[in-house]
Amino acid sequence: MKLPMNYCSNCGHAVGRAVPEGDTHERWVCPDCSMIHYQNPKIVVGCVPERDGQILLCKRAIEPRHGYWTVPAGFMELEETMAEGAARETMEEACAEVEIGHLFAAVDVPQAGQVHVFYTAKLISDFAPGPESLETAMYAPGDIPWDDIAFPSGRFALEKWIEDDGRNNGVHAYTARRRLIG
Amino acid sequence: MKLPMNYCSNCGHAVGRAVPEGDTHERWVCPDCSMIHYQNPKIVVGCVPERDGQILLCKRAIEPRHGYWTVPAGFMELEETMAEGAARETMEEACAEVEIGHLFAAVDVPQAGQVHVFYTAKLISDFAPGPESLETAMYAPGDIPWDDIAFPSGRFALEKWIEDDGRNNGVHAYTARRRLIG
Repeated sequence: MKLPMNYCSNCGHAVGRAVPEGDTHERWVCPDCSMIHYQNPKIVVGCVPERDGQILLCKRAIEPRHGYWTVPAGFMELEETMAEGAARETMEEACAEVEIGHLFAAVDVPQAGQVHVFYTAKLISDFAPGPESLETAMYAPGDIPWDDIAFPSGRFALEKWIEDDGRNNGVHAYTARRRLIG
Repeated sequence: MKLPMNYCSNCGHAVGRAVPEGDTHERWVCPDCSMIHYQNPKIVVGCVPERDGQILLCKRAIEPRHGYWTVPAGFMELEETMAEGAARETMEEACAEVEIGHLFAAVDVPQAGQVHVFYTAKLISDFAPGPESLETAMYAPGDIPWDDIAFPSGRFALEKWIEDDGRNNGVHAYTARRRLIG
């Protein structure tokens, strides 16, 4: 697996594939300035915002999975922690403030080059759809629209959150073997 | 924080900084082909390989922190899970096979744009220094060379591993606020 790359982002020369000296993997390398362009998985950070036993979900206004429900989650940015990223995504997607709890689910998505991590969270504000959401709503565990959940990783997080029932049972791990996004 | 970039890796044109429409962050964008070059944190995966109550450590043969001790850890690659990456790094750095257990420590390193995650592991083979290690050795918890541990994240993992004493106490979280690497 490699992400497409045509030109060196340092010097602009056309790049090629090679195994650098002392390395174990083939990389994009620049034959002109010798820069090695490493490509690594990205982290998606999310949370399960809870209040009075109900969970805040967002109906997606964007592709992929437009119109399906999800917990707030998105790509982690530079300069933030995973918990800060999960809270930021909740503000962006549901205009909602949360107090992040503990990391309870980690989902590897190797075909997409992603790792999805999920935190418990307490909802401590009002909520409303952000620009990437059509709707936001609170669901009791018994009323979650399982047939309309956007992604297997979010479904796994919701299932394990319900199983844990407020306890910290360590990290639930799962590998999603089919491409989820893109 | 941004990582340096001069030219578009898609078309070779010089890039500039801009906030794409609908985005919340400034990115490198190409004024010619319109490609947005997202930059996100990288994941370092490691483990604490244990046998008979002792821990396998590696003395680094490379910078940064040449000559200091560390648990096996390194950058996660595309196409692998976090657990597979932690096992691969142990094979590369200590020529050792492990059975990965559970994720027990997660360290955010925002200044370096990294997240370091650590797993418990059972050492199930012989061991020897790989090309990036000067020495490999087993240490009882009471004999760990704390003054010569390479990185704060690895020190945190060793401390919490000892505290947990074989139990799964969930993920211990820590934010390392000073640059660790580079």
